[in-house]
Amino acid sequence: MAKKKPIAIVVHGGAGPDSEHIHKNKKGYEEGLREAVDTGYKILEEGGSAVDAVEAAVKKLEDNPLFNAGRGSALNANGEVEMDAAIMRGSDQSSGAVALIRNIRNPISLAKAVMMNTKYRFLGDMGALEYAKQLDIRLEPSSYFITEHQYDAFSKKREEEFTSSDRIGMDQLNARMHGTVGAVALDQEGMVAAATSTGGTENKKMGRIGDSCIIGVGCYANNKTCAISGTGDGELLMKNIIAYDISALMEYKGLTLQKACETVVLERTHKQEGDVGVIGVDAAGHIAMVFNSDRMHRGWKTNSRQQGIEIYDKK
Amino acid sequence: MAKKKPIAIVVHGGAGPDSEHIHKNKKGYEEGLREAVDTGYKILEEGGSAVDAVEAAVKKLEDNPLFNAGRGSALNANGEVEMDAAIMRGSDQSSGAVALIRNIRNPISLAKAVMMNTKYRFLGDMGALEYAKQLDIRLEPSSYFITEHQYDAFSKKREEEFTSSDRIGMDQLNARMHGTVGAVALDQEGMVAAATSTGGTENKKMGRIGDSCIIGVGCYANNKTCAISGTGDGELLMKNIIAYDISALMEYKGLTLQKACETVVLERTHKQEGDVGVIGVDAAGHIAMVFNSDRMHRGWKTNSRQQGIEIYDKK
Repeated sequence: MAKKKPIAIVVHGGAGPDSEHIHKNKKGYEEGLREAVDTGYKILEEGGSAVDAVEAAVKKLEDNPLFNAGRGSALNANGEVEMDAAIMRGSDQSSGAVALIRNIRNPISLAKAVMMNTKYRFLGDMGALEYAKQLDIRLEPSSYFITEHQYDAFSKKREEEFTSSDRIGMDQLNARMHGTVGAVALDQEGMVAAATSTGGTENKKMGRIGDSCIIGVGCYANNKTCAISGTGDGELLMKNIIAYDISALMEYKGLTLQKACETVVLERTHKQEGDVGVIGVDAAGHIAMVFNSDRMHRGWKTNSRQQGIEIYDKK
Repeated sequence: MAKKKPIAIVVHGGAGPDSEHIHKNKKGYEEGLREAVDTGYKILEEGGSAVDAVEAAVKKLEDNPLFNAGRGSALNANGEVEMDAAIMRGSDQSSGAVALIRNIRNPISLAKAVMMNTKYRFLGDMGALEYAKQLDIRLEPSSYFITEHQYDAFSKKREEEFTSSDRIGMDQLNARMHGTVGAVALDQEGMVAAATSTGGTENKKMGRIGDSCIIGVGCYANNKTCAISGTGDGELLMKNIIAYDISALMEYKGLTLQKACETVVLERTHKQEGDVGVIGVDAAGHIAMVFNSDRMHRGWKTNSRQQGIEIYDKK
């Protein structure tokens, strides 16, 4: 009897500091992660592609108002939502990415359309919106994206800005408020894929682009090595070219996926610089979830009896 | 007597197919490259930083209407100029990048301001323009950027689009029309830096972001390894994470700068996929200029008697 072909999916809902909001909504977060994992896994089980699985999983997280991507995105300093997303296919290193996206219900699906239907890899702002209007991509009014939680956070910060004399403390607080969602998967054909989507950092300057939409940083996939989705302080991930560095350590130094993730996230990144978390999968079905922060929302399922949902415990 | 500290600068003005326009303006291109090299080298000679040297060199190329960056940028499908740029400092991997920039005379200086003065690494479109308006950054009317050559190219392409039945051929032609400018330098303190700036591909979809502003792809700098500026088919550079891959091969496989550039540009990139060119420098003062295309406009000068300007001959 032929050996069972490995399939696997891992999702994340952001890495960073703990908060009262997370504690209070722990159950909702766990349910959201489980729904994303199950949706992606079902596609893999039925023989679907890793690309379709990571897109479907990320869409679930974008639609879920608890996560900072799609609906529930953080508001920028102007009180608006500007989203970034990227997707990559490990079989041929095709990729699609979008930045500064408004009014697109699922930025990850627009990134996928860029990958599948254009000769480009990266579209931004109005040009990306113009392109989306030509496609069967669902638009939403600006109010759809803004949740009570994010609006309160924005209002509170505005108020503090006007009253606080400790601006440096404020900046540090702002810098630590972040979130992202992402997924990596391995399908029955042995193809890996990665997808990442975010509303970016709270109170960010209008026009700020983070790591999530940067191929090689917040998202990378290569059947020869791994698929990676990153989260944490975007500027720190960009500094260290996190996702491709993991792939390079596997390819050039022969490290395993787990060891490569640990090297990049725990050794090559200085903890005091900020939060970094990654999820990964390789073509043999190994999975990895490594973070240097208080917590990383994550869920996983493989056909070798591994599955789980965690927020805090490091494993 | 102490050994003379090495200093070096290399600039490029794009890699790609040959053209009648390039032949006709060969002397002008050579003068422009020489001016950029001399400007950057003077800064290094006087003890200035590699960051200042690459910025100054790239500004000269942005101001020169012959090169596709700043004034002389290619027009997008709407007949508008949208520019990308990035800069990176090798001592601490600080970086700044801007995408979809309009009306900024020198996008590289805005990228440098993002690096020096903000907690962000990447700003795009209107948000970047808003930020520029707060700074002492020179703005220009849209007409400033549009040269006769680029306008003619745009008009010709529009006309062909309406008359040609061979749309696939057109797309291929469009894809091969590209250009970028860039510089890498090593200063007396042993710091390397890289800068890249572009008007992007001719007739590109509005909102298309290329490799030039992507840290790790079109621009990367690390004192431990090298500074790299890339050019060619942006989407192909993005696929292969060109700049960081060169650094990774040096760090993880012990390759020399020259060998790492050759491996990435000539071995790991399939010639039929498109044009790629890179310039590089390391902390010991070694320089590299490697391309798989008909030509790469380039100039270089070091204090170990190396200097030159070339467009065609591969060395």
